[in-house]
Formats: sequence, structure tokens, C-alpha cells
Amino acid sequence: MEHWLNKRASLTPNQIALEMEEESYTFYQLQQKVKTFAGQLGRFQIKGHIGILSDNSSEMVIAFWACTYLQLPVVFLNTRLAISEWQQQCTDADVEWILTSSRYLDHAEHLNLTVKTFFEVKKLSVYEPASVDEIDLHRVCSMMFTSGTTGRAKAVQHTFDNHWSSAVASSLNLGLLSNDKWLACLPLFHIGGLSILIKSVIYGMPVYLLEKFDTEKVHKAIMEDDVTILSVVAVTCSRLLERLDEGQYPASFRCMLLGGGPAPKPLLEKAQAKQVPIVQTYGMTETCSQIATLNEQDALRKQGSAGKSLFSASLKIIGENGECGAGQIGEIIVRGPYGIAWLLPSDY
Amino acid sequence: MEHWLNKRASLTPNQIALEMEEESYTFYQLQQKVKTFAGQLGRFQIKGHIGILSDNSSEMVIAFWACTYLQLPVVFLNTRLAISEWQQQCTDADVEWILTSSRYLDHAEHLNLTVKTFFEVKKLSVYEPASVDEIDLHRVCSMMFTSGTTGRAKAVQHTFDNHWSSAVASSLNLGLLSNDKWLACLPLFHIGGLSILIKSVIYGMPVYLLEKFDTEKVHKAIMEDDVTILSVVAVTCSRLLERLDEGQYPASFRCMLLGGGPAPKPLLEKAQAKQVPIVQTYGMTETCSQIATLNEQDALRKQGSAGKSLFSASLKIIGENGECGAGQIGEIIVRGPYGIAWLLPSDY
Repeated sequence: MEHWLNKRASLTPNQIALEMEEESYTFYQLQQKVKTFAGQLGRFQIKGHIGILSDNSSEMVIAFWACTYLQLPVVFLNTRLAISEWQQQCTDADVEWILTSSRYLDHAEHLNLTVKTFFEVKKLSVYEPASVDEIDLHRVCSMMFTSGTTGRAKAVQHTFDNHWSSAVASSLNLGLLSNDKWLACLPLFHIGGLSILIKSVIYGMPVYLLEKFDTEKVHKAIMEDDVTILSVVAVTCSRLLERLDEGQYPASFRCMLLGGGPAPKPLLEKAQAKQVPIVQTYGMTETCSQIATLNEQDALRKQGSAGKSLFSASLKIIGENGECGAGQIGEIIVRGPYGIAWLLPSDY
Repeated sequence: MEHWLNKRASLTPNQIALEMEEESYTFYQLQQKVKTFAGQLGRFQIKGHIGILSDNSSEMVIAFWACTYLQLPVVFLNTRLAISEWQQQCTDADVEWILTSSRYLDHAEHLNLTVKTFFEVKKLSVYEPASVDEIDLHRVCSMMFTSGTTGRAKAVQHTFDNHWSSAVASSLNLGLLSNDKWLACLPLFHIGGLSILIKSVIYGMPVYLLEKFDTEKVHKAIMEDDVTILSVVAVTCSRLLERLDEGQYPASFRCMLLGGGPAPKPLLEKAQAKQVPIVQTYGMTETCSQIATLNEQDALRKQGSAGKSLFSASLKIIGENGECGAGQIGEIIVRGPYGIAWLLPSDY
């Protein structure tokens, strides 16, 4: 397949790709910045995996896409971890080279790896222009670590195909409108955040990017900046509804995609009273984001349910005596083109 | 992947699947009818390919999906051909068994093949319930013949993956709205018609099915029955605009997807004056329907162009001296997941 960002920049060059509080880039502008950055980064002739340690920023977005032009799998490091945890993850994921924002430079330098800030790379002259025009869907695009709920955090590899299939499945579920604009305030180093970036390029949809969740900023983005979809967790959803108070979101606002755990009933009732559609979703790093969703119509009637598996996914819950009935506890077995993820190292 | 119709019937059972002048079926109802028909057809233990010779009808739709449950590739025969042409195509595509409507029974019986009408099959008791719950994307789903513009008509095989990729690419191009309803008045034995059926199940979208193009019926379906998208060719588009006269389509009407050849400038100007969006598209049997489209915004500015290739497709025009510039004549080279089609017999 043609490189997604090249294809998108050729299809809709003047469409907004990335919108932030202070500035925005079209897909053409984003492509140019990414190609330049890839040309600068190419100077280091990096082999293997490259770590990115950063909060959400346009530099982080540009660095990620630049790595796809250089065919470098990106290992996303969670900025909230301790240095020893980063060290462990870099060892597990075979990272020897790290890109970071200046905020994390001091910390990152304790890792005994090669570390460069986005700013340092941007000052370099272009070594050679980015040359990868094709995406091999079977290549690894990104890696990130599971939360480690059931033991040591594991590195999950996402191929381009995993990301493609996930973006497609989400669009078949939620639909795709020409005015869609998705707000990303989840960290891009989590799959829930990264998946928005991927969708943006595949759909030709602007992403409104915030460094992190901030009630006032998100509220303003919905009320004034034409955001139509928003990824939230229960606690941020609750804060937004409180901030909304007696007000109403614009008619163009479509829904909040709520993941990361079930939503409490009072929250769902509040949302319904304020006519804010909540689409509850179930997914994880291993499934490359959402794999099941609960329609807004069923939000209260089926409270506690994660809904139905997406069109191209299959899901079973298996207990000791085979497939579980309603309310029974078992292991979740998922199948689908975005459920294929490898774990590293191989001896887990 | 789970069988598309099972999955769709489980996701949105009460959504309308098929709407005709006199009746409509939900996805659940369609699935039940299809499973029953498959159970009846199963009695004949058909091996190999099955021919369908019919004008658009709900019976034809049910028979097609029933064949997918029986893992029988369907060879679609053009009702407008002569008996000798059908004979040739049945030989080329290895067809020994034909399903037809009563209208074509007399003709079909000249073919010296086993022929049953939809009605005959529907009278049978169910032999065994349909048992195929999975779709193997690499299997052949349907076969149809090229128009034979450049020689003898060739059989093109479409795998489920070809249809899947085409439906996905179209949704990324046109978007996907929850109120979408696509009118099919093109013959289902052409890829432009069949692709609407496939989209219907993958998108969860109603199809408004007409036996054939009829200006009054199509006009009424748009004006009164909430059709949002319509596949047309230049001549039918022209008749509809004439019928519209000084009127206006409802605001929910999204576009006419115009294929089968370029649209004359006066037609495009007329459409623009009446605020009827025309999306011109280029595609063929070999590419499993559309592979390039021209946005409505560019309709007049780029008159004569087929637009840009869809997100997952690549397209080049190659002449004697390599890639052609604007206005040069060459051979069209396409690449993409819906461009993989095999031709039969192998000695073409």
C-alpha cells in the first residue's frame, strides 16, 4: 500500500490534519514536516527500535510518522514511569536510541542509551530525503507495554495491518462524517491515543491534540472548535458533564468514546439527561484499541456490558466448562485482524 | 472472519437490510430467509460453481447470500445476452447448475444444464440447516464477465477479500452515515450493482432495490423514501435531473455515484445548478467496482478526469516511454487489494 501519509496528502492536501491550541497543520504541511524530520533523523542511521519518551505534542506526532518513513518501529514509553522501569522496557523492547522532549531529557540521560531531543534533531540539516513510499502491512509499526495487570508489563507489537484493521473496524462501527474531528487528550503512548493519530491519516480527519486532559480546554474545544468525537475514561467524562452544567453541546457533537473500564450508572444517567451520547468500549493494548462497543441506545439498558464485538472481530468468554453464559466469569478470547500482536521477549 | 450476514444480523438485527416497493426485510429477517434458502438448496449437493440468471429481485439477493453459506461461488449471468453467449460463459466459468427466475426459465432450459427457479427451491423442505459460520476471505465469492471491449468476455473471480476491501475503500472515500440508504437500480449481475449488496451487509445499511432503472420510481425513492446515495450512469443521471425539473432533492440526499463512462459537461453544470452532488467514479469488473473517484468539488474544474485513486489503491498510466503525463494516452495499471482477480479459463 502507498505510504498512508503520502496517500492522504495527495488525496486531501488542504484538509486540517492536526489542530492544537496555537496552530494547525494541513495534511500537506504535516507530510512536509514529517519528511524533513525523517531526513534529519536519517543522519543517525539508526537500526532496530527507537524509543519515544514524550507527552502529547506536534513534535511527537511528527517524530512518530518520520519513523514510519525510516521503517523504524517506535517503542512508546510512558512518561509517568520511573527510570528503572524505562530501563527495563528499553531492554525488553531492544531500544538503544531515544527521542524525547526537553522536559524528559535529564531523566532520559540516566538510561545509558543514545538520547536526542526533538529540538536537537530539528536543528540538523537534512541528511537524505525520506525514501520509503510504501507501507508493508506486515511490518511492525509501533510497540507499547501492557499495563502489567497480570504480571510484568509485556511489550506488544502492532503491525501496520493491526492499525489499519482497527481504524477500519472503528469507522464501520461509528460511521465516518466529512466534518469529523476527534479530540485526543489521552496520551499518545497508550493505544487509545495512538489509534486516533492513525485514524486521522486513514480517514482524512483532523485531530484536535491536547497535551493532556484539561476540563476547561476540552470543554472549549467541544463548544467552540467543532470537535465531534472524544475519547475519555469515566473520570474525565464525569468532569466534562459537570462542567457542561445546564449547557448543551453543539448539535454537531457526535459522541464520547468511553474506555478504560465500565462507566458507573449515575454517570450514564447524567449523560443521557444532558443528551450526551456515550459509546462504551472495551479494548486493550493487545487488541490494538477497541474490539467491542456498546451502542449509546443500549448504554443504560445494558449497563456494565462492553457491548458487541466489532464487525471484523470475534469474542468469546470461556470458563472451566466451555463458553460462559450471561454473568459468568471466564477468560476473554478475542479473534480478529487487530488481535494479532506479538509479545517480547520470547520467553514470557 | 465471522460470516458477514451472521455478524450483521447479530450487530443490528432490526435495521432494514432490503427495501423494495412492496416490502422490506430487516437484517435478521434477511438472514433467516437466506439460511432457509441455503438449507433448501443444500438438498442438491451442488459442487463447483452455480449460475444465477435473474433481474434484480429479493429472491436473487437471497439466493446469492445463500450460496455464500454453501461456499458456492456464484457466476452472475447477464440477462440481456443470447442463449449462445450464456452457453459460452457457463462453459468458461465451469457452471453446471443454474438458478433463475421464472421469467428466464424457458431460455435457461436451452442450456442443457440443471436449471431450477427460485420458486421451485423455495417450495422444498429444508434439507439441512446452513452450517458455514465463517468466511474465508481468500475464497471466491462471485464471478462475472467483463464487457469484452477488448476481445472475448473474460470471467473475473472476486474473492471475499476483494469485496471487503472495495467496500472499506468506498466508505473511507464517501464516508458512512447512520442514515445512509443506497438505491440499487443497476443490475446486480454487474459489479456496480453487486457491490451495493456487499456494502449493505458490511455497513449495516439498507439497500433500496429496484428491478431496473425507472425514472419515476427512482425519483420517488429519493424524494419520499430517504435514499441518500444512488449509483447511476450518465444517461440515467440526465433523466433524473430532467424529472427533478425546478424541484430540489431532500437535504439528506448525499450524492449520485456516476460510473460507466465520463459525464458530459452540460450534465455536470445542470447538476451543479440543481445542487445535486455528482461523484464521478472509475472502475470495472476487474477492480471489483470503483478504484478512483472525482470529488464533487472538482466535478467541473477537472471535467473528464476520473479523479484520484482510493486510499488503498494505486494507479498509474504507462505509455511507450514510461509513466504518462497529463493528457497522454497509455495503459492503466492498477494495484490494490480489490484489483486481484483471476481470469478463467487459464489459457486466455
